[in-house]
Amino acid sequence: MNKKIKVGIVGYGNLGKGVEGCITQTGDLELEAIFTRRDPASLSTSSKTDSVNNILNYKDKIDVMILCGGSANDLDHQAPEIGKDFNIVDAFDNHGRIPEYFQMMDKVSKSNKKLSLIATGWDPGLFSLNRLLLESILPEGVSYTFWGNGVSQGHSDALRRVDGVKHGVQYTIPNPDAIEEVRKGTNPQLSPEERHKRVCYVVTNDDCDEFEVENCIKTMPDYFEPYDTSVEFISEEEFKRDHQGMPHGGFVIRTGNSINSNNQRIEFSLDLKSNPEFTASVLVSYARAVYKIYKEGKTGAITVFDVPFGQLSEKSPEQLRKELL
Amino acid sequence: MNKKIKVGIVGYGNLGKGVEGCITQTGDLELEAIFTRRDPASLSTSSKTDSVNNILNYKDKIDVMILCGGSANDLDHQAPEIGKDFNIVDAFDNHGRIPEYFQMMDKVSKSNKKLSLIATGWDPGLFSLNRLLLESILPEGVSYTFWGNGVSQGHSDALRRVDGVKHGVQYTIPNPDAIEEVRKGTNPQLSPEERHKRVCYVVTNDDCDEFEVENCIKTMPDYFEPYDTSVEFISEEEFKRDHQGMPHGGFVIRTGNSINSNNQRIEFSLDLKSNPEFTASVLVSYARAVYKIYKEGKTGAITVFDVPFGQLSEKSPEQLRKELL
Repeated sequence: MNKKIKVGIVGYGNLGKGVEGCITQTGDLELEAIFTRRDPASLSTSSKTDSVNNILNYKDKIDVMILCGGSANDLDHQAPEIGKDFNIVDAFDNHGRIPEYFQMMDKVSKSNKKLSLIATGWDPGLFSLNRLLLESILPEGVSYTFWGNGVSQGHSDALRRVDGVKHGVQYTIPNPDAIEEVRKGTNPQLSPEERHKRVCYVVTNDDCDEFEVENCIKTMPDYFEPYDTSVEFISEEEFKRDHQGMPHGGFVIRTGNSINSNNQRIEFSLDLKSNPEFTASVLVSYARAVYKIYKEGKTGAITVFDVPFGQLSEKSPEQLRKELL
Repeated sequence: MNKKIKVGIVGYGNLGKGVEGCITQTGDLELEAIFTRRDPASLSTSSKTDSVNNILNYKDKIDVMILCGGSANDLDHQAPEIGKDFNIVDAFDNHGRIPEYFQMMDKVSKSNKKLSLIATGWDPGLFSLNRLLLESILPEGVSYTFWGNGVSQGHSDALRRVDGVKHGVQYTIPNPDAIEEVRKGTNPQLSPEERHKRVCYVVTNDDCDEFEVENCIKTMPDYFEPYDTSVEFISEEEFKRDHQGMPHGGFVIRTGNSINSNNQRIEFSLDLKSNPEFTASVLVSYARAVYKIYKEGKTGAITVFDVPFGQLSEKSPEQLRKELL
């Protein structure tokens, strides 16, 4: 049997927990340790844990480090630091900052002869791959990305900052009329607010004015204005029963013409009961690819655009051609 | 401006015509010539044409040859012959024979220091890529492929061999109940005939017994038995008006669990008004990739599983990361 690929996890929130679980679903990856800034003994897991301050003790024991921190606060400093000594994979998801982040990581990884794969997950990640595939194949066409149905953490946080709101969750819902129009191939011009609706479930404090809360939410600029926003007031019991999940998903759709004005349509879609666990699944597949591509001698930063799908699988090229081609 | 990638087309049926058109939609490919076994002057095109017997005259003029013949009669002898002197891409689509065909082409291309990409298109091709991606990401799950709605040439040919049939076309239709069941994540066991229906439109000769024709079709083994097959008799006028297109498409769906028995679903689907033009679009993108990968020094045979999506695009890696990641 081949030696297993040794993996480390940095950060033990929802994403880190998901990665820990996904590794057990593979036959070729093995979790060496989970690194945390908290007290390592405080994590409720049977996996080995250690302080992130001790990470260099694992320099020769870990093939790929999976960074499970957030883009906003963690990755900007963690990735270049850890990338000096380890191959890494991360889910950096600030689309606008990807070019500068890529450059930074390319420099760090190249000068330390390591490999980093940045910005994987499902968007950026699988959705990006489909945007690229679809426009390469149908150059004359239009691509659309719809998100949802799913919980937006940022918008749920915004809800909870409104005076009088005790609990709140916001679902982003793709507008079915917009999807229908896109599928027809009419290439409509659609702003994000025309493509999506926002549905909020809110539990208020006893003494608050629901009319005022609703108005305050619907007129909150950028977050809810100019979106079609609905606010439903529910009981705390209902909130705890029905709104604890982290579903998400969406569509990438492209319609285009090949030669004779033929209408061709391609769709890729996700319907996820757990957003962080799915992102974790993607990270784990790409950790395997990082290991393989590093073995081939590649260093620097790469993205999902640079990875042949064959590298994502446990199976041999022969087996893949026989079973899946 | 960069030099354009020079492309040749071998075979000028529906697929070859599609490729000719798709090349005009790109900014970086240029058609050098179309090669045919027929009289080159007889092709109705404004592109340059030549006899396939003169193909070696183009040895230094063509970067990638796109083979547009069929798997059944053409590729088995054409590909290894042309692959000695050219990089090639083809749409070999006999799934069961892919491993031996790959081995043959790998040997030919490697020993002649050329590169061949075999078996691209949409199935094999884009569907294969999705089967691979989806099972790599959700190892605990089940994948399903549905084909249709679309015209099956093989089944239409079979219809036309029935006594009394003047014109006939067969549409493969995915069974909506089966799709629904798969989407629910119940992982049903479904045979091909449980996943698909067959709908036939038939024009008969004046003197024939429609009851007998229908019975003969429905009981034809492998082709129609044991499928849920319906036969509609229509007029020649209706046939010519409504059934001349070559639509096709289908779905690859995988449902699986990440850790906490979460139901995750991924779908990739195509809805094509012209099957051969879409296959042509895919061939053209992969011809671009063959050129780039050959430039990097790779020889032998490869498949879609070996090609990073970044290689399919005209755009630079920087541009792709900025615009599409």
